[in-house]
Amino acid sequence: MPAQTMEELVALCKRRGFIFQSSDVYGGMKGVYDFGPLGVELKNNLKAAWWRSMVYERDDIEGLDAAILTHPLTLKYSGHEDTFTDPLVECKSCKQRMRADKMFDPTKCDFCGSKDLMPPRAFNLMFRTNIGPVDDGSSFAYLRPETAPGIFLNFRNVLDATSRKLPFGIAQIGKTFRNEITPRNFIFRVREFEQMELEFFVEPGTDMDWHKKWVELRWQFWLDQGLSAERLRFEVQKPEELSHYSKATTDIYYKFPHAEDELEGIANRTDFDLGSHSKEQATLNISAKVKENKHSTAKLTYSDPQAGTTVVPYVIEPSAGVDRGVAAILTEAYTEETLENGETRIVLKFKPHLAPIKVAVIPLAKNKPQLVELAKAIKDKLQKLGLGRILFENSGNVGKAYRRHDEVGTPLCVTVDFEAVEGPQAGTVTVRHRDSMAQERIAIADLPTFVRQYYAS
Amino acid sequence: MPAQTMEELVALCKRRGFIFQSSDVYGGMKGVYDFGPLGVELKNNLKAAWWRSMVYERDDIEGLDAAILTHPLTLKYSGHEDTFTDPLVECKSCKQRMRADKMFDPTKCDFCGSKDLMPPRAFNLMFRTNIGPVDDGSSFAYLRPETAPGIFLNFRNVLDATSRKLPFGIAQIGKTFRNEITPRNFIFRVREFEQMELEFFVEPGTDMDWHKKWVELRWQFWLDQGLSAERLRFEVQKPEELSHYSKATTDIYYKFPHAEDELEGIANRTDFDLGSHSKEQATLNISAKVKENKHSTAKLTYSDPQAGTTVVPYVIEPSAGVDRGVAAILTEAYTEETLENGETRIVLKFKPHLAPIKVAVIPLAKNKPQLVELAKAIKDKLQKLGLGRILFENSGNVGKAYRRHDEVGTPLCVTVDFEAVEGPQAGTVTVRHRDSMAQERIAIADLPTFVRQYYAS
Repeated sequence: MPAQTMEELVALCKRRGFIFQSSDVYGGMKGVYDFGPLGVELKNNLKAAWWRSMVYERDDIEGLDAAILTHPLTLKYSGHEDTFTDPLVECKSCKQRMRADKMFDPTKCDFCGSKDLMPPRAFNLMFRTNIGPVDDGSSFAYLRPETAPGIFLNFRNVLDATSRKLPFGIAQIGKTFRNEITPRNFIFRVREFEQMELEFFVEPGTDMDWHKKWVELRWQFWLDQGLSAERLRFEVQKPEELSHYSKATTDIYYKFPHAEDELEGIANRTDFDLGSHSKEQATLNISAKVKENKHSTAKLTYSDPQAGTTVVPYVIEPSAGVDRGVAAILTEAYTEETLENGETRIVLKFKPHLAPIKVAVIPLAKNKPQLVELAKAIKDKLQKLGLGRILFENSGNVGKAYRRHDEVGTPLCVTVDFEAVEGPQAGTVTVRHRDSMAQERIAIADLPTFVRQYYAS
Repeated sequence: MPAQTMEELVALCKRRGFIFQSSDVYGGMKGVYDFGPLGVELKNNLKAAWWRSMVYERDDIEGLDAAILTHPLTLKYSGHEDTFTDPLVECKSCKQRMRADKMFDPTKCDFCGSKDLMPPRAFNLMFRTNIGPVDDGSSFAYLRPETAPGIFLNFRNVLDATSRKLPFGIAQIGKTFRNEITPRNFIFRVREFEQMELEFFVEPGTDMDWHKKWVELRWQFWLDQGLSAERLRFEVQKPEELSHYSKATTDIYYKFPHAEDELEGIANRTDFDLGSHSKEQATLNISAKVKENKHSTAKLTYSDPQAGTTVVPYVIEPSAGVDRGVAAILTEAYTEETLENGETRIVLKFKPHLAPIKVAVIPLAKNKPQLVELAKAIKDKLQKLGLGRILFENSGNVGKAYRRHDEVGTPLCVTVDFEAVEGPQAGTVTVRHRDSMAQERIAIADLPTFVRQYYAS
């Protein structure tokens, strides 16, 4: 049974080194978190899985890593300066501010219960910062509120460098920042987070087919990360809910401990983005309603060399949250089991490719050089497979190590005991499986193949 | 012969999709760059090599990924609020601002030549941004100017989660931001960049030995990335150059096209950092001169369970720039060769593990389904090895493809020709080597093993 409360997850994450409140020594920063030794591996493994599925395994997607500091004109023409807002309400009594659409009861203050509230006003969520050696506010940048604008601005650069033909996509993973009014629910709604975004450029007219296809592909991706279909669902936005530029948006919701909530959105953004950032828009037959662009130096169009036609491509955008992905994976993996002896064990049943530690190699006794050296040699050998982190764990208590590795989701523990070095079983070690707790003896010489195959399947 | 001018590199980087000026559609952002399809792979490969050498191959280092948004108190007690400055000079005549210590001629303006300059003043390089739903400046965060503070603040969290014993380290890779007065030299001095930092915590008294060891290890790391010893040198900071907290600092310089300049610094920071962020400092026997800390809620100390002693560990910090590493690797790899037929080819002679594309699989003719399908199947098979990006390249012109892959540093091209599917050599393909341009025929069935071994060595 997956995690029932966010508190269970928060406690485990701190205790085992997945996620810490940022700046906790100074009282903490609301809505900002640090990823610890295991959290960074889990997060990197999720990002690698996404990158693999997008850039490596397909033949029609290029990668990108654009900057966080973003030119104000980019976010003017993208529409963020005008519309990237949440409704902010202030309590006249206690002066607390809160998000009008997320209040527990919109008629009274979340904090003091007073009904004396200011009318909601639009609060822009973008962080800005002065840039350059003049600090009078005349020159500033935004911290990007999504990674997408960096992709659109590089559309021509990528096209020119790669000679891609439609349809093709540009994928990007990176930090984004939103000045959330009320960060909450652990790493679900935060002020600094990461996105995995694909902008897939298609011929107008093929866009609805591609939208459908990407909805299916993204659903499958989350199943492949171990999320269960029972806790996922589609939420098709109704026509009246759609952003003005969107022709269709389907969200993927996951049943988090706090609620069913959005994990990823897949939008058909039409030609709004490339059209918005283009010059000479009147000549481009743009279907979306775009702001007149007086600053752009480029036409973000695609010319078909065979057909001799030029179009502003439509864009399908699957946009997922890395941190929300991590939260969902932790929720799903969290398991409390009652063992035969009545004890309880906590296990994180990660899919192997997501596990922060791939194999823990444990000498049975920490003061026996023979065992310790052999374990170390096995660790080094397995590390060379390039599968991720292999831990050499010289704690001297195998039982406790197994429990700890259950709690952090290590799929395989390799124990180097005395039988490994002498007697009829010399040259073999114990391999212990996380989920079944089954143990088997495997020849040391066969371990690399065994481990490689385990992680290939 | 490595690249002689930055212009050569900039042009190649843009043409082939390594690095683009950020927001170029809107005139560009000074000192901010975007990494294109090949740049993101190169950069990720360098980061992965560092992570592997630190976190995976050693047994005494944990990873971390702390936030960019940083609590003001963190940077107050770290000393950055007071001292993270550059001397700023303003020209009274043309009003341009420049960095006093980097002027071409400190007696006159870099821009207009006027000698009528304001006296230099200290300009703090940290970016700040308002945070939370009140925008009156009462609540703000800094964008971290280095990744290090996030490590120090999590010292106890990591220790508690992992039960590490001294000596041990915490490694981190991530974005950092500095409001450089005069960004210059392509990606060398920029406003947004990435660092790879290790904070290695040791017993006081063992610090100079560890410092020496880390200087050697870091030198070797850069050799392993393909930089030549002839273009690297140590720069040992003289006592009068050292920061007040530093007992010893050795920089590693690389001969960039613009100048010999810093690639990495290895500092013995004593107990300054953990001491600065601790409460009850008077009880901790701190040797460094630290600001009195009235806000911290923790003692960042290490207690030895056996000896019963408590110390503030000393810190050895190898701190490297990712972007500078990328610039050095591009410089070193860049090669212009005159071929036997008199033509010139440009080759990026990356070490294989750094190459953005590991193997390009090329059907000889793009309209022959038999060849195209076989090439695609080979690509999929090689992709599964998990070595990085394998490119299926269906351009139909093998000669041009070889030149292009020389220019982007692809070590191996696999060409699927007609002999691969019929005749006496059926079942074999041509493997073409980047540096030697030598070609050999290899059985398709042997390719995975061949490629895996190539990248393992």
